[in-house]
Amino acid sequence: MTTTLTIGFVGLGTMGGPMARRLVASGFRVTGYDVSAERAAKARDGGVALATSPAGVASVADVVLSSLPDPATVRRVYLGADGVLSNARRGMILVDVSTTDPETWREVAAAAQAEGVDCLDAPVSGGPAEAGLGKLVFIVGGDGAVLERCRPVLGTLGSDIHHVGPLGSGQIVKLVNNVMSIGNVAVAAEAMVLGVKAGMDPQRLFDILSTSGGRSFHFLKRFPNVLAGDFAPYFGIGLSRKDLSLALAMAAKLEMPMPVAAVVRQVYEAAHAQGFGQLDMAGITRLYEQWTGVAVRGKAAGS
Amino acid sequence: MTTTLTIGFVGLGTMGGPMARRLVASGFRVTGYDVSAERAAKARDGGVALATSPAGVASVADVVLSSLPDPATVRRVYLGADGVLSNARRGMILVDVSTTDPETWREVAAAAQAEGVDCLDAPVSGGPAEAGLGKLVFIVGGDGAVLERCRPVLGTLGSDIHHVGPLGSGQIVKLVNNVMSIGNVAVAAEAMVLGVKAGMDPQRLFDILSTSGGRSFHFLKRFPNVLAGDFAPYFGIGLSRKDLSLALAMAAKLEMPMPVAAVVRQVYEAAHAQGFGQLDMAGITRLYEQWTGVAVRGKAAGS
Amino acid sequence: MTTTLTIGFVGLGTMGGPMARRLVASGFRVTGYDVSAERAAKARDGGVALATSPAGVASVADVVLSSLPDPATVRRVYLGADGVLSNARRGMILVDVSTTDPETWREVAAAAQAEGVDCLDAPVSGGPAEAGLGKLVFIVGGDGAVLERCRPVLGTLGSDIHHVGPLGSGQIVKLVNNVMSIGNVAVAAEAMVLGVKAGMDPQRLFDILSTSGGRSFHFLKRFPNVLAGDFAPYFGIGLSRKDLSLALAMAAKLEMPMPVAAVVRQVYEAAHAQGFGQLDMAGITRLYEQWTGVAVRGKAAGS
Amino acid sequence: MTTTLTIGFVGLGTMGGPMARRLVASGFRVTGYDVSAERAAKARDGGVALATSPAGVASVADVVLSSLPDPATVRRVYLGADGVLSNARRGMILVDVSTTDPETWREVAAAAQAEGVDCLDAPVSGGPAEAGLGKLVFIVGGDGAVLERCRPVLGTLGSDIHHVGPLGSGQIVKLVNNVMSIGNVAVAAEAMVLGVKAGMDPQRLFDILSTSGGRSFHFLKRFPNVLAGDFAPYFGIGLSRKDLSLALAMAAKLEMPMPVAAVVRQVYEAAHAQGFGQLDMAGITRLYEQWTGVAVRGKAAGS
Repeated sequence: MTTTLTIGFVGLGTMGGPMARRLVASGFRVTGYDVSAERAAKARDGGVALATSPAGVASVADVVLSSLPDPATVRRVYLGADGVLSNARRGMILVDVSTTDPETWREVAAAAQAEGVDCLDAPVSGGPAEAGLGKLVFIVGGDGAVLERCRPVLGTLGSDIHHVGPLGSGQIVKLVNNVMSIGNVAVAAEAMVLGVKAGMDPQRLFDILSTSGGRSFHFLKRFPNVLAGDFAPYFGIGLSRKDLSLALAMAAKLEMPMPVAAVVRQVYEAAHAQGFGQLDMAGITRLYEQWTGVAVRGKAAGS
Repeated sequence: MTTTLTIGFVGLGTMGGPMARRLVASGFRVTGYDVSAERAAKARDGGVALATSPAGVASVADVVLSSLPDPATVRRVYLGADGVLSNARRGMILVDVSTTDPETWREVAAAAQAEGVDCLDAPVSGGPAEAGLGKLVFIVGGDGAVLERCRPVLGTLGSDIHHVGPLGSGQIVKLVNNVMSIGNVAVAAEAMVLGVKAGMDPQRLFDILSTSGGRSFHFLKRFPNVLAGDFAPYFGIGLSRKDLSLALAMAAKLEMPMPVAAVVRQVYEAAHAQGFGQLDMAGITRLYEQWTGVAVRGKAAGS
Repeated sequence: MTTTLTIGFVGLGTMGGPMARRLVASGFRVTGYDVSAERAAKARDGGVALATSPAGVASVADVVLSSLPDPATVRRVYLGADGVLSNARRGMILVDVSTTDPETWREVAAAAQAEGVDCLDAPVSGGPAEAGLGKLVFIVGGDGAVLERCRPVLGTLGSDIHHVGPLGSGQIVKLVNNVMSIGNVAVAAEAMVLGVKAGMDPQRLFDILSTSGGRSFHFLKRFPNVLAGDFAPYFGIGLSRKDLSLALAMAAKLEMPMPVAAVVRQVYEAAHAQGFGQLDMAGITRLYEQWTGVAVRGKAAGS
Repeated sequence: MTTTLTIGFVGLGTMGGPMARRLVASGFRVTGYDVSAERAAKARDGGVALATSPAGVASVADVVLSSLPDPATVRRVYLGADGVLSNARRGMILVDVSTTDPETWREVAAAAQAEGVDCLDAPVSGGPAEAGLGKLVFIVGGDGAVLERCRPVLGTLGSDIHHVGPLGSGQIVKLVNNVMSIGNVAVAAEAMVLGVKAGMDPQRLFDILSTSGGRSFHFLKRFPNVLAGDFAPYFGIGLSRKDLSLALAMAAKLEMPMPVAAVVRQVYEAAHAQGFGQLDMAGITRLYEQWTGVAVRGKAAGS
């Protein structure tokens, strides 16, 4: 029964592309759209049928997924002239897997509900590799029954599906988590460079700290790469700046001071301004290296 | 052989008191000193002989340990008129277990070396309970051979002795670690309150985040207490302010910008200013609660 | 000749209301609109004809002025379904006197130009009193010839009209100026409270500083009020938060770090969070008073 | 009578040197000391007799002035083994003209009082040129009668002598003023570069802002130089870092949060770290230029 769901997919880029192709490979009929002809062509090569607009995608889909860069694009794709909701049909489900913000999605959902269309926010953890292997983690906000109807689709793409609360809570939890991840990395970069500037050997310092109270998940995960001089962007400085901006905008609407996140964002902006914007978020270490003249990177034991 | 070492102990407070008493209980002869008659009397009740000055302690000790509140006190205790070094004897070893700063201790060590006296910096992780049970963790800077001579003493007090490098590196590693711990807690408090302000249930949010990428050692360790409304100061806001100040002073001497730590320190100062200064460092959550009107504390499931 | 211009006015609030009424009193025919029936009624009592939408205003006006709270409202008023541009007529001029952001207004202007309609951005300095007296200062961006056609209107409302550059530059200069004003006030509040906390008499300290290098226009203008305990919002903490947010959003689009403004914004947010949000921007002094337990306010000599 | 006062001068550097030479030129007998033989020799060429220690200076002086780089040096010069107070004589007056901190000077004054020696803190505004011309501004803390006894000396060096309160208040007012000056400059640099990055012409922007509410004394004084590309250090980034550190240390002792000053200090540290440490404090503009790729400097009209 469930495999008869037909899928629409708007946004076929770094994350959306592999997700759409995996759905095809798993037996779903998928129709996609992307503003970039190049990205669309790549998806078509993976078996994705192409539409010429989000509205076109909607016209043939039971479930529309989207993976988009920012709230303004989400709004346009769903609410715009040629948007998904211009072809809304009762019983359709819309699932945004982008990390955007709860308000925008609630605005889309309110418009959708008026047409008998259900919505979920389902931002993901994991990168393109996990997308291709169906090993993403979904953090889902919305109605539990709607999630059950989508489970065949999300279960094809992800190994874990956390239902965290009502509509919008997927976005909230994702942003909160990312603020913590990015903040912990900035704290670690600053502290590591302080230690090295004070004379410690980088690898020795990492070895001690990795068993001490100051450790965090991302310190353990990313700083071995830093020591090896590897800054390939698993989750980059650009996404860090974006997610901190989204979280700070959410805090501003809630009238909540977030001084630490505000400064962390400025430090990432400085790292971008000094030319490190294409690196992994742990590449913020490079900014501190430049400020101090010491090297943490490339200082792994034996390297 | 080694148990014939006689011990001097300057600073018999929260940490020094239990350490000195444990050494007595383990068979060492210990002579101590504290500016507070009350603290000194408590140590005497535990079998510590009392001297009337740091110099008096030094006159009868092979190894002098000190547990002191700040670099100025360290300087006075060792270099002052009635200080330890006024009774320096060749072959004596001085071990400061305070968290202070590498420069002060190197200054003491230079003066000591001129008298044929060796020094170690050996700041500890763990609190009074661990001190009493001999379960402290020592982070030791200094000469390895000197450490070996002290091992019977430190091994009585601690379960782990990490030799991290030359003189001063114990202090460096300790400060770097604490900057990370305190920073991670501030990041977590800010993020948790953001999520709760946005509508999430605190316990539910903690449960998800505790398995997500944003987690850190101290998030997992301390926030269950926060949810239970327990802010008993295992490591308090006062110590957090002190250690951030020491780290920022070290960075200033090294001419290194530390914008994140600088703002974290200001947030802890604000928490202190608004009346939360006696709480555990995770009590910074209270500042954000006050700013937002939401409650994280006392919101553990079932509480 | 020029008095034959008919005026439309969207947004009849704190600033727009007095401006519209002054135009009426000066002989212009003015048609206005406001979402608030109450504000609209007040304008009608001052001789402003009322329309039922921005489109209705546009249908009878040669020059449309708007005074609106934020960029989203500007967009809706001009580009929305019942917006000004839905009744665009060739030769019409649109003048936004709000402090918003250059990008939004350029977006409106691009849409307007396609209809043969010209635009100016003309944010103002001065408050309701100056508006009623025709003593506002306009900072105008846009084509000089277009400005000349509007001069009879703007000259009725303001004593100074600065033409600062092409379209959008009025907004840029206004935001840059306000970032400086607000920043200088925060700096002054923090410094004044430091001095008082250290033991200085507030009035004595102000007297010395007001002739010293640390002085600024707003320090001289606002801190006598602070000393008198008068925090009536000439330019309030709410507008300060708004303008800092707009400037930071502009900087984010330009990929420019603004660490000082970012922290100043957080301090204003904290002042709002602690209950001072309705005060004048110099009311940020209250936050520091609360943090330190000293009083600057109400400490004017003789008070 | 008063001209029979003999003067001691410790610290014959950038400020102390010209001050000592001016006193000689005005008919005072001056004996000086400096750790630098080169600086001492230069003073001798100006007619200053040389002593070999602060104690030596004290042995022949009725009034000892000092111009020193930091609190630690002040402490050593006055309280150290060969310090001024080791030759204290009843009726002697000590006047520190450095910008240091109130606590250190109060500590010196307490020791001095025990010997019947009076103290003033008298930090100055103005640079070497003003020192040579007797046009300094003194901000004096201490007893008014003591100040009267020194007036012939201070009146020779300065055109304005502000008596601001009891001992230490000269330092407090000086630090408060400098925090404001430095903060206003940072705010202005950030704002100016924002405007230029957004497309404004630097000179045009300065011209408008210099008559707007955002202006400050140092904006008007220093930014014409910035536009001319002149960053000669009238008051440099090094002194800015020093004075911000002193103010933040004073705030820390008073348990007062100073988030804006804390971040301003970090931005100056970053400017130093990126190679602008030798420039005037307005040279912080260079940091923002580097971050944005625009030029404010060298953009004066006609340049």
